[in-house]
Parts: sequence; structure tokens; C-alpha cells
Amino acid sequence: MENHVKKYIMDCDPGHDDAVALILAAKHLDLLGVTTVSGNQTLDKVTTNALKILEVIGRTDIPVYQGSENPWIQKLETAPQFHGESGLDGPRVPAPTTKPQSMHAVNFIVETVNKHQQLSLIATGPLTNLASALQMDHTISERIEEIFIMGGSLTYGNWTPAAEFNIYVDPEAAYKVFNSGVPIRLCGLNLTRQAFVNEKDLKVLEDINNPVSLFCRDLLDFFISSGGRKAPFKGAVLHDVCAVAWAIDPTLIKAVDMHVQVELQGKFTRGMTVCDYRHTGDQDPKTDVNHDPILPPRGESPNCTVGLELDVERFFKLLYGTIESYQ
Amino acid sequence: MENHVKKYIMDCDPGHDDAVALILAAKHLDLLGVTTVSGNQTLDKVTTNALKILEVIGRTDIPVYQGSENPWIQKLETAPQFHGESGLDGPRVPAPTTKPQSMHAVNFIVETVNKHQQLSLIATGPLTNLASALQMDHTISERIEEIFIMGGSLTYGNWTPAAEFNIYVDPEAAYKVFNSGVPIRLCGLNLTRQAFVNEKDLKVLEDINNPVSLFCRDLLDFFISSGGRKAPFKGAVLHDVCAVAWAIDPTLIKAVDMHVQVELQGKFTRGMTVCDYRHTGDQDPKTDVNHDPILPPRGESPNCTVGLELDVERFFKLLYGTIESYQ
Amino acid sequence: MENHVKKYIMDCDPGHDDAVALILAAKHLDLLGVTTVSGNQTLDKVTTNALKILEVIGRTDIPVYQGSENPWIQKLETAPQFHGESGLDGPRVPAPTTKPQSMHAVNFIVETVNKHQQLSLIATGPLTNLASALQMDHTISERIEEIFIMGGSLTYGNWTPAAEFNIYVDPEAAYKVFNSGVPIRLCGLNLTRQAFVNEKDLKVLEDINNPVSLFCRDLLDFFISSGGRKAPFKGAVLHDVCAVAWAIDPTLIKAVDMHVQVELQGKFTRGMTVCDYRHTGDQDPKTDVNHDPILPPRGESPNCTVGLELDVERFFKLLYGTIESYQ
Amino acid sequence: MENHVKKYIMDCDPGHDDAVALILAAKHLDLLGVTTVSGNQTLDKVTTNALKILEVIGRTDIPVYQGSENPWIQKLETAPQFHGESGLDGPRVPAPTTKPQSMHAVNFIVETVNKHQQLSLIATGPLTNLASALQMDHTISERIEEIFIMGGSLTYGNWTPAAEFNIYVDPEAAYKVFNSGVPIRLCGLNLTRQAFVNEKDLKVLEDINNPVSLFCRDLLDFFISSGGRKAPFKGAVLHDVCAVAWAIDPTLIKAVDMHVQVELQGKFTRGMTVCDYRHTGDQDPKTDVNHDPILPPRGESPNCTVGLELDVERFFKLLYGTIESYQ
Repeated sequence: MENHVKKYIMDCDPGHDDAVALILAAKHLDLLGVTTVSGNQTLDKVTTNALKILEVIGRTDIPVYQGSENPWIQKLETAPQFHGESGLDGPRVPAPTTKPQSMHAVNFIVETVNKHQQLSLIATGPLTNLASALQMDHTISERIEEIFIMGGSLTYGNWTPAAEFNIYVDPEAAYKVFNSGVPIRLCGLNLTRQAFVNEKDLKVLEDINNPVSLFCRDLLDFFISSGGRKAPFKGAVLHDVCAVAWAIDPTLIKAVDMHVQVELQGKFTRGMTVCDYRHTGDQDPKTDVNHDPILPPRGESPNCTVGLELDVERFFKLLYGTIESYQ
Repeated sequence: MENHVKKYIMDCDPGHDDAVALILAAKHLDLLGVTTVSGNQTLDKVTTNALKILEVIGRTDIPVYQGSENPWIQKLETAPQFHGESGLDGPRVPAPTTKPQSMHAVNFIVETVNKHQQLSLIATGPLTNLASALQMDHTISERIEEIFIMGGSLTYGNWTPAAEFNIYVDPEAAYKVFNSGVPIRLCGLNLTRQAFVNEKDLKVLEDINNPVSLFCRDLLDFFISSGGRKAPFKGAVLHDVCAVAWAIDPTLIKAVDMHVQVELQGKFTRGMTVCDYRHTGDQDPKTDVNHDPILPPRGESPNCTVGLELDVERFFKLLYGTIESYQ
Repeated sequence: MENHVKKYIMDCDPGHDDAVALILAAKHLDLLGVTTVSGNQTLDKVTTNALKILEVIGRTDIPVYQGSENPWIQKLETAPQFHGESGLDGPRVPAPTTKPQSMHAVNFIVETVNKHQQLSLIATGPLTNLASALQMDHTISERIEEIFIMGGSLTYGNWTPAAEFNIYVDPEAAYKVFNSGVPIRLCGLNLTRQAFVNEKDLKVLEDINNPVSLFCRDLLDFFISSGGRKAPFKGAVLHDVCAVAWAIDPTLIKAVDMHVQVELQGKFTRGMTVCDYRHTGDQDPKTDVNHDPILPPRGESPNCTVGLELDVERFFKLLYGTIESYQ
Repeated sequence: MENHVKKYIMDCDPGHDDAVALILAAKHLDLLGVTTVSGNQTLDKVTTNALKILEVIGRTDIPVYQGSENPWIQKLETAPQFHGESGLDGPRVPAPTTKPQSMHAVNFIVETVNKHQQLSLIATGPLTNLASALQMDHTISERIEEIFIMGGSLTYGNWTPAAEFNIYVDPEAAYKVFNSGVPIRLCGLNLTRQAFVNEKDLKVLEDINNPVSLFCRDLLDFFISSGGRKAPFKGAVLHDVCAVAWAIDPTLIKAVDMHVQVELQGKFTRGMTVCDYRHTGDQDPKTDVNHDPILPPRGESPNCTVGLELDVERFFKLLYGTIESYQ
């Protein structure tokens, strides 16, 4: 399952599920760097968190580049109610002993894409850095192999009725990325909600009983509590982990190609990923009970491969097997 | 199942599925009038169609009132590709021998609501007439018992990726109705697509073999063909019939209360019904595989009861039993 | 100057300047009715005010029709800071002894336009009634001779930086009217601000010394005070009077034809009248120092005659002469 | 009048009036660099033009940095109808012998602002580079002394009824700059239209008779012709020169402070600079006949100093004196 040819940059705002995603990515993917972006928390905090996570898993060889402090147009919104004041509340981890690189994440992305063949990006935060890189040098859109995005939704939002947090925080940046021509694999809420963990998963991580599993246990313990859900639904969703899992093993996710746009102007829909489901005329209707199986495909041609169904069993097998492999 | 107390006005733009809906309504509901609105076709055509249908079923005692020729703001779009040039292509029916009333539909609605207790409206076209009535006299919002609407969608659109035809044709009018305070029962595409008919249904109608069943057979024959669908999905959807069926028998449709807004400003989402699914925290997740069952209800308080699941078997039993009861 | 052939309906929300406008109109124009609309104050108040004004000037023969309580889409905003709690604070006038007609203003407008040749409308409030009439029967757009509107601006707004109050209160209605095809004569703020009165005008009205002049004096006294302006700019603007004066004497106002649109979607410009000044290539640049005199006309064809320059001296001569003529 | 302390970066898209502006700036201001942006023509063309102009005036010591090829969100629009296929049609000038620097204009701006005290920017094209620099490092907003912008309008647009070309081409970038907190001096169309040249100016430049004056003569000859204006209005406007002149001599332009916003969402007003003229309560009304002199200031606090009146005589004296001073 290891991928020896492709290179990756992971753009993130850790964040509890980003942390687990990074732990998974660092083991399986050739990560040329981690770039940070304001989102779940402010830039300084998420950058510190990225450094901490890499130190916990003994991968301080992966360089970290600080990126965008603010969205393109609107004021930054963060999510302390879910990730705490530090953005990574829960585990007790000392301050990192390493520092981010001096180069700006946007310049790092532009340079790195221009230097490497078969480079893909994984984006688990707002898309500000990627959009800024495309703005600095639009020719990178022809060289990026694909972008795995955790963001948006085929159906309902979470931050607003129609919009998911990562896209909502910087809709203009998302618009730039979705209209860049780079192939996108989209892990929206409709998919990621299938990556649901609860207290049983805390037990699994305790039983693995290595420093990384215990770090993850503390992460999820906080994340499950902050969700504020009551039994029998008490739990949390590992949104960002899906994007990394898809990059590692494409067979984990069933998906269809659609045209996806980002709404910038709606009063009730700003930041929504508008997915044209009408392309998917003849797919298996069992993947969505609300799907109209009878309309022929129509509309604009697809720019996204939208994840529909997660192989939940194999997903968690990959995740826990990976965490176990850390010593 | 007959409802002897409640009164109804049916506001429609027939239209093949409106026709079947009217046939069902005329048998079970105390219809004080049929009001017409431009939508599937222009006002003159849909008014003629309403008169024709009532004549076919021997109910010329139900008065027809002509309403709005144009949407509030945007230019009228019609759907001849699905309903033909007449709006009711298929059956050969002579020109109606009756005429619409001279009173404008909007004035009829205002007057009738002010005269009757327990009056509900069924709207199966664009919401122009209802909005204009609410504009003429906003106090009717306190007297209308409820409005059964075929329009919008909990999930995907049909006229655009995000918008359904009836709402898309006059979004400002829809906004007025959804924000009027009148209780709404919403049959969106997510629900109505379950009312699917195909060639087997043509056979059922042939076997009933009365004038009304043969009229319906010819309607559906055209409607199935105009849909342009290929086997195994060749068929058509009886959207508007769901709204009438719900008024007749509330147990036919499972529904949940949500806050629903109509997007007026989106570039990609104008005319979308934005449903806040986040209210529905603890419902049975089996009704929607994409539903997040774990979030607590939040957002603005519900203004709509949104239909989720149609009891398909009992729905068609009601429909075909009714058609059979016509002589 | 009297116009014996043309008929008029005056649609208004009195309001201090509406009151003076009505006093001017009632003497010179064949008014078939006064219709009221929520704006400066709520509908019940402005209707009472219309009745009061007509009683003060002895013209209870002119029927008053109540119209729209609310704008089409947005919540009503009123202007008590300028017009007081009654909408006509200042003069002490007893409650009216007359009542409005039972017919709704919208139905009155539709019927009256369909009955008369050469009928024009004067609108000095939000355009809700006119838009609703055009919605009820769009064919009246071919029969209305022209609409004199006080609303909008060629340049700056007053209620927001870009929008004038009357248009801002119901932008969708304004959009309907401006796109109806009816010829419009537009008195925007750029023009009406030239109709400036101050304490010297109070003296003029005192000197005329008849009941109508004293009523006007008390109106302007309040209106000047509520403006909150300081010397040397202490005063008030007779916005609505311009629209009536234009109907009485077309030579009082220099104007040019332009294409004018109403912005519905702008975050900072909703309710703005967007005037395409680029049509006016070769007019006298002295009428506007910011005007580019050198561009050839371009853009969409004109739908409005936009007032630029008021003959201030003759305007006030007409106004005070008229007030003096009342006994 | 020379300014020995302040440093400048000139961000431009030459362009005929940009060319004259650069000729003026290079003589009077300490230019640390010229940065280029797509606008009047595509990036490669305007960069070539910048190099050409500097070579014509013997100032190849000023480095040129290439910037943004595309606006942030929308597709690039250029203005070949006014500036020709090269963006600088008219004069015959050989291909430049110099090249732009390898550093991206955005990085140059960020680095240079962080290195120097009292640095100001002059922007005579779309604001893409400046916005990208503010996005890369928002702290530069505290260090930039001010930005002189040719763009927008207090009154009417040119590219649309409401929008001026430079702002219209990249409204999101303009929004970023206007909301950055950096003091702005705005030369909108209302001001720049006063910098009008015609055939008499061609004669003046011929009489100066040095290589720079003849280069300018050929520029203006083309620019006057491409405007398509007829006598007596045949001529052209030196928009961009105003921004440079203001930086050189603040007394050349009368201005007032206002709050200015950039409309992103309007259907008819996208790209408009919405100036809140209501701040300017007590200024001399002679500067604008449409101005309401009597309203007290209100609204949000000013972020722009908006130019109203150009001292035309001294402006041209400065310009022609400067051109004459080149050998």
C-alpha cells in the first residue's frame, strides 16, 4: 500500500482530526512538507500543533511551513468549541523543540510543485494556502497531480445549514481551487460522517498502548467530549483522516465524478459546495436513498470526484494498524 | 379518510402530475376553487388545462380562477420539454365548454381565506399567487391552516443542481410564503421521487378502464416518454400528487420539522430551499444514509414539516382506488 | 398650466413633504384617487394623514385607498426620526372625519388604469402598490402614460451611502416598476435636494396667512427641526413636491434619458438606482462637474427620464402661489 | 517639491496613461521598483511595456518585477480597444534590452515594505499584487505609509455604469486593499476626468521636442484616437498620472475623507467603489453641484481620502515641465 513514487504536501490546521490524519500520512506517504493555515485555530497555534505532532511521532525530519494567517476576504472564524483554546486540547504534550521553516508556505508550495513530478496535495483545512499558491503561479495547476480535500458536503453543512467549516472559512479561496482545473478528490461531510468514533475506540487505542496510540486516545477523548453529543450518539467524526486514507488506498472510498461549484454570494448558502448530482444518472441508487436514479447526466462537465461511501471496516483497520506500527 | 370539515383551495399549473393531483383532490377534499398560475406552461394554457381536467372528471362545479401570468421579479420559464406545447400533451380532450371566473385568483384567495375557518391551500406550481395574496392582506397568514407545497428539495435540485423548478421559477414569491408564518408541509424532490411510475402503471390504468383511468393513462404515457429516460429507469415522477395525498392522509408521509429558507442571491443556488437538517438530531438515521445522527438540534426554529419518506404502497393504493371510483 | 385631459393617481406615504406635494397636486391635477403605502410611517398612520390633509384643504371629494402594509420581501423600515410618531408631527389637526374606501389600493389602481385614457401615476413613497398592481395585471404597463417617481438618486443615497429611502424600503417592488416598460420620470435626491427650504420659508408661509399656509408652516417647522442640521445649513428638503411639480409643469426640470436599474443583491448597494450616465454623451457638462462630457452614449437603452436641474425660483413661485390660492 | 525621504513602489499595467505616470514618477520620486500586473493588457505585454518605457527615459536602473497574471477570482478582462494589442500602441519603440527580475512582484513588495521606513505605493492598475502581498503578510499594512490609487469613482463608472475598469477587473483584490487599514488616496474617475488632453497637447509635446516628449506625443496621439470621441470632445484622460502627481505634490488635489467600500455581490454594481459622501457634511458645496451640503457626517469612519478637484493648470505645468527636463 506504500506509495514510493508520488510525493505529497499536507496542508492542514491541526486540529484533532488533522492530527490523526497527519499520523496516518507520515507513515504511508512521502511527505515533502507540512504547511499550516489558520482554521480550527489561529496560525501560530496550529503551527505549534503541527510541530508537536511530528515530534510525538518522531518525524521532525518533515519540515513545517507557516502559511496564511487570514482568509482572502472575510474575517477568520475558528472552532475553539470543538478543538479547545490550543486547537489540540486533551493530550499533555510539551512545547515543540523545533521551529517552522522561514519560507512562507505559499512559496514552498509553488517551488515544490515546480520541482517535482507526480506531486499531490492533501488539504484538511481552509484552502487559503492552495489558492494563494495558484494565484502566485497559475501554471502549477497543470503540474499538481491531484488535491485530496476534506471540505464541503454533497448534502448538508455543519457550520451553517448549507456550508461545511473548511469551505465556509474561506469561500473565495475554495472557489479558486475548485475552478483551477486541478483534479480534486472531495471528502465532504456526507462521506466523513461515516468515519465515526466513540468510546469503544478509546478502548482500542488504550489496548494498543504505545505513545502514539495513547496520544490519539487523549485526542479523541477530548474531541468526543467537546462534540456535546449524548448517548447513544456520543462520539466524534474523523473528517480529515478520510482524505489521507483516500490518498493511501483509493479502494477505500466509492465516489462519482460531478461538477462542483462554491457559492460565494448566497445569503443562506455562502460557502456551500454545490454538487451537480445530476451527472450521476445511472449509478447504484443504493448509495443514496434520495438520489434520482432516472435522470440522464447533464450540466457542466465534472471537476471533482466526490466521495460517497467509505469502507468503514477497512478504514479503521488501516488506521489502527498504522497507529500500532508506531513504537 | 374523507375530510368533511376542512376546506381547500388548489393552486396549480397543470401539467401532467398536477392533473393527476387534481383528480385525486376533487374526490377527497372539499375544494372551494382551483387557482391557476404560470409555470409548467403559460397562464392561458394551464387555465384551459384545469378546465379540461374538471370537465373530464365531471366536476365543472368547482370554479377556476386565473392568477399570475408572470413571476414577481424574473422572466417566466416554462417546461414544454416535459409537458408539451399545451402543458398537457398526450390525451385528446376537446376544448373546455366552461370558463374561468372573472375574479383574479389572488383576490379569490384573500376573500376565501377571510370567509372560512380551517382552510388550507395546496400549491403544486410556482408560489406567485399565494405570495401575492399574502402581500395583499398579510393577516390571512394567521387564518390559513396550512399550505401543502410541492416544491424545493431537501437535497438536490432538478432545474439547476440546487433548485427545483417550482421554487426556481419564482424564488421571491417562495421566500414570501416560507417566511409568512403559515405552517408548511413540504413535498420536495427528495420525497416526490419516490412516487415513481413506469410502463407497468400504464397497464394498471388500462385495466381499470374507465374514462378517467384512460385519461390518466394517456397523460402518463406522454409524461414517461418526455422524461427521456432509458430502461431500466424509464418512467416518470408524480411530484404534485404527493402534496394532495398528504392532505388526504397525513400518515402516508414521514416527515420532520426543519427551518427552511429560500435562497434569492446565490449565483449557483438561487431558488434553492435551504433546509436546516441540523434540527433533526435524534431521528431514525435509516431515513437518510447521509444524515448525521449525532448532532443535537440547532439553528432557527422550524417553519416547515419536510416530507422524507412516502409510503409508496399505500400511496398508489389510494391513487388507483380513487381513479377506479370515477365512473 | 392646469391639465384638463390627463388623470392622475397619487400614491404616497404622508409624510411632511408628501403632504405639501398633495396640497400642490390637488389644486392642479385631476386626481382620481390617493393611494397609501407604508413607508415614512405604517399604513394606518399614513392613511390617516392622507385623510387629514385632504380635510384641511377641503378636498374630501378625492377618495383615499389603503394599500400595502409591508414591502414585498424585506421587513418594513419607517422614518419616525424625520416625520415623528404620527408620520405628520407638527401641526395640530383633529382626527379625520372621513374614511378610506373599502377597495384595496392595488385593485383600485388596476381598475382605474383599465378604465381611463391618459392616466399617469405620481409615486412619492415606496413602490409596493405600483409593483403589486403590475403583478396583478401586467397589461396596465401598456396603458399607464407615465410614472413620476420621487426615489433613488443619480449620485449618493441618504438611507445608506448608495440608496435612497423610498427605493431602499422595497427594492424588489422598485425593480418591478423600473423594468415594467412604463415611461418613468425620476426625481432622485440629486434633483430634490435643490428644493431646499429653511426658516425664511416659514416666514413666507406665515405671511400668506391662510389655513393651508399655516398648516404647511407647522409641517415645515417640524421637518426643519427633525433634520437636525445646524446653521448655516439648517433646513429641509421638499423631495416629494418635485414629482408633483414636474407633472404640473414639465419645464421646471431639466432631465436626460438614461437606463436605470435597481440593485437587489449588493451588500453595500441594495436598493440603489444604478443610472447609466454614459448615455448622456453630449449634454451640457455644466449640469454636473463630475460628468465626463466626452464619452459617446452606450449601454442599454433608456427606460427613465432622470431629473438633473430644478428651476428653483419658478418651483417655489408655483408652490407658494398655489398655497396662497387656497382659502 | 522633490521628496528625498520617502520611497515608492509603482504597481502598474502600462498602458498609455501608466506610461506618462511612470515618466513623471521616475523623475520626482525615489522608486525602489516597478511591479507589473495584468490589466490594460496581459502580464507579459505590460511587463515588456514597463521595460520599454524605462529604457526610453534612460532609467533602466529601476528594477521591474512581474506580478499577477490573473485576478483573484474572475477571468481577466483587458482593454485593447483603448491601448491596442501591445497595450502601448502608437510609438515605435524597439524591444527592451533589459529583463524583469526573477523575484515575484508580490514577494518584492512584502520584502521591500518590511525593509524600509516611509514607503508608499502607487497603484495604477488592478490591485491584485497589493492584495496578494497583504494576504502573504498582513503586517505590512501597518508599515505602508499610504497607497495612491487610480481606481473607482465617487460618481459614475466607465467599464459598467457603476464600476471603473481597474477595480472591476479584480474586485476581491480591491476589497482586500480598501479594508486593510492602510491609508488610501483615491483618484477616481470623478477626479481623473479633469486631466483631459486633446490635440492642443500634442502640439505642446511636439514643441518640447525631446525624445521623451515625442514618445509621449505618439502615446497621446494613439490614445486620443482610440477613445473614439468626436469634436468638440475629442481627447483622452490621463487617469494614472493623477495618482503620481498627488504623491509628488499633495496640494494639487482637493480631497475629503470618506468611508469607501468595494461592492462584490451586486448584479449591477459589482466592482463599484461605494463612497459614503455623507461624511462630508460641511465642505464647500461648490465642489459638487449634486452634493447635499446640509447633512451632518454619519456612517462608518473614513478609510480613504477621496480626490475631488484637480488643480488642472498646475498639474499640466508639473507634467510638461518634467517631460521637458528629460534630455
